[in-house]
Amino acid sequence: VSEVTVACCQLALRIGEPAANRAACRAAVREAATRGARIIVLPELANSGYVFDDAAEARHLAESVEGGETVADWLALARELRVTLVGGLCESGTAGGAPHNSSVILDESGVRAVYRKVHLWDRETEVFAPGSEPAPVIQTGLGRISTMVCYDVEFPEWVRMAALRGAELLCVPTNWPRAPVPAGERPLDVVRVQAAASVNRLFIAACDRAGTERGVDWVGGTVIVGPDGYPLAGPVCADRTVTILAPLRPSEASRKELGPRNDVLADRRPQLYRL
Amino acid sequence: VSEVTVACCQLALRIGEPAANRAACRAAVREAATRGARIIVLPELANSGYVFDDAAEARHLAESVEGGETVADWLALARELRVTLVGGLCESGTAGGAPHNSSVILDESGVRAVYRKVHLWDRETEVFAPGSEPAPVIQTGLGRISTMVCYDVEFPEWVRMAALRGAELLCVPTNWPRAPVPAGERPLDVVRVQAAASVNRLFIAACDRAGTERGVDWVGGTVIVGPDGYPLAGPVCADRTVTILAPLRPSEASRKELGPRNDVLADRRPQLYRL
Repeated sequence: VSEVTVACCQLALRIGEPAANRAACRAAVREAATRGARIIVLPELANSGYVFDDAAEARHLAESVEGGETVADWLALARELRVTLVGGLCESGTAGGAPHNSSVILDESGVRAVYRKVHLWDRETEVFAPGSEPAPVIQTGLGRISTMVCYDVEFPEWVRMAALRGAELLCVPTNWPRAPVPAGERPLDVVRVQAAASVNRLFIAACDRAGTERGVDWVGGTVIVGPDGYPLAGPVCADRTVTILAPLRPSEASRKELGPRNDVLADRRPQLYRL
Repeated sequence: VSEVTVACCQLALRIGEPAANRAACRAAVREAATRGARIIVLPELANSGYVFDDAAEARHLAESVEGGETVADWLALARELRVTLVGGLCESGTAGGAPHNSSVILDESGVRAVYRKVHLWDRETEVFAPGSEPAPVIQTGLGRISTMVCYDVEFPEWVRMAALRGAELLCVPTNWPRAPVPAGERPLDVVRVQAAASVNRLFIAACDRAGTERGVDWVGGTVIVGPDGYPLAGPVCADRTVTILAPLRPSEASRKELGPRNDVLADRRPQLYRL
């Protein structure tokens, strides 16, 4: 069981300024690596920003995984710094189709997985083509890493499937739009991540946004949660650029026991489930 | 859309003292009704207590729904006070089999549903026969009421099924054994209930225990949560006998929208789910 430091870089991105966004990602990844991180998570749509004026703007800002400048940047960083990166990408559509709201897992060996957001939020339905593949579960030297994007994590079916397929660390690039939170309460975005980690006994690293974008504010709820559902780092819950880090042992998430007689996956009654 | 006050009565029960437990339930239900409650939830195994020495003790304390003194008590209260009751019952097995960890929904018209806990916790597997039927969803004059028991609610599949079948208010009798909670954190038992309510946009009333029973302490986490996942009353999170109340409109839980373009049930991608 080896320990690895996981980081989430909560960034203030700028819609329509890909060069500035690449620079912000580079600086944050370098800083996280300097502080010991070996797995580094970036926000949703880290190349483009989120609040598109229209579908045409998203299409214009989309990049391909092969040949796009952002993934090229991330690959160079992964190789130089010897880190695993998970970041959200506004990805060009295939065959001239609509772009995808994607998350890319990459390490020194190259791009390991491209996941396309399956559950689309709000105007994303007018902008992106939804994915139709489950969250990938990638065996790396640092553990079995999975990824999904923002609203996906609100579907317990989707997180459960990743757990059933062996995910130990689920990396979730997000852009959580801010909503009112009652006094003394933690934003439900974070609460849902805690519960999802707990009922599946896996680690979740959710990386949110900072900054105001065309009038939209963000929860800034970046958090790293353990298999018991309690935060290991964060939640930040503030509008600021910040990197949070947590040392953890991904393989601990392969143990699904709850005490001597229970197991969160083995205790399921799938023959009774109609979903 | 009519408003109804829901109550949860967090009680200190006594293992092996059914008469005392019936008296405690009666007093709490009367108090809740006096304070305006029309739907009243009692803890798990409210007739028997929880920490059985062995299977024989549970079998000895089990009661049938028809003819048992506890349900007879609850029916008399429902009729006299004109309330709907949901309570946990150590229920006699059928045909001489092991007892069930059940939850009963009853109102002025009689027993409306008997649900038998499907996901058993810890030594319950040595004591109880698990149920094999989904959580009932009962149309009442106060809304569509469902029930499940304690550990059941940790299975997102199970809550989702109740939501898909139309539940507006999920009543959950529990006995949550106390576990360490990091400073400043809310017990995960409560967090999971908040998330379950939020991702399904339904009301959840979880009624926990107080008192120490054969060395076991309880979270005392009784809580009533709204469809947005935030508490309407509680969580108590203290070892005391207390009734919490919340006025709510069950029919609000029939609206599953999240803003203008999303819906927590319609946005599911069931054709992609392999559970």
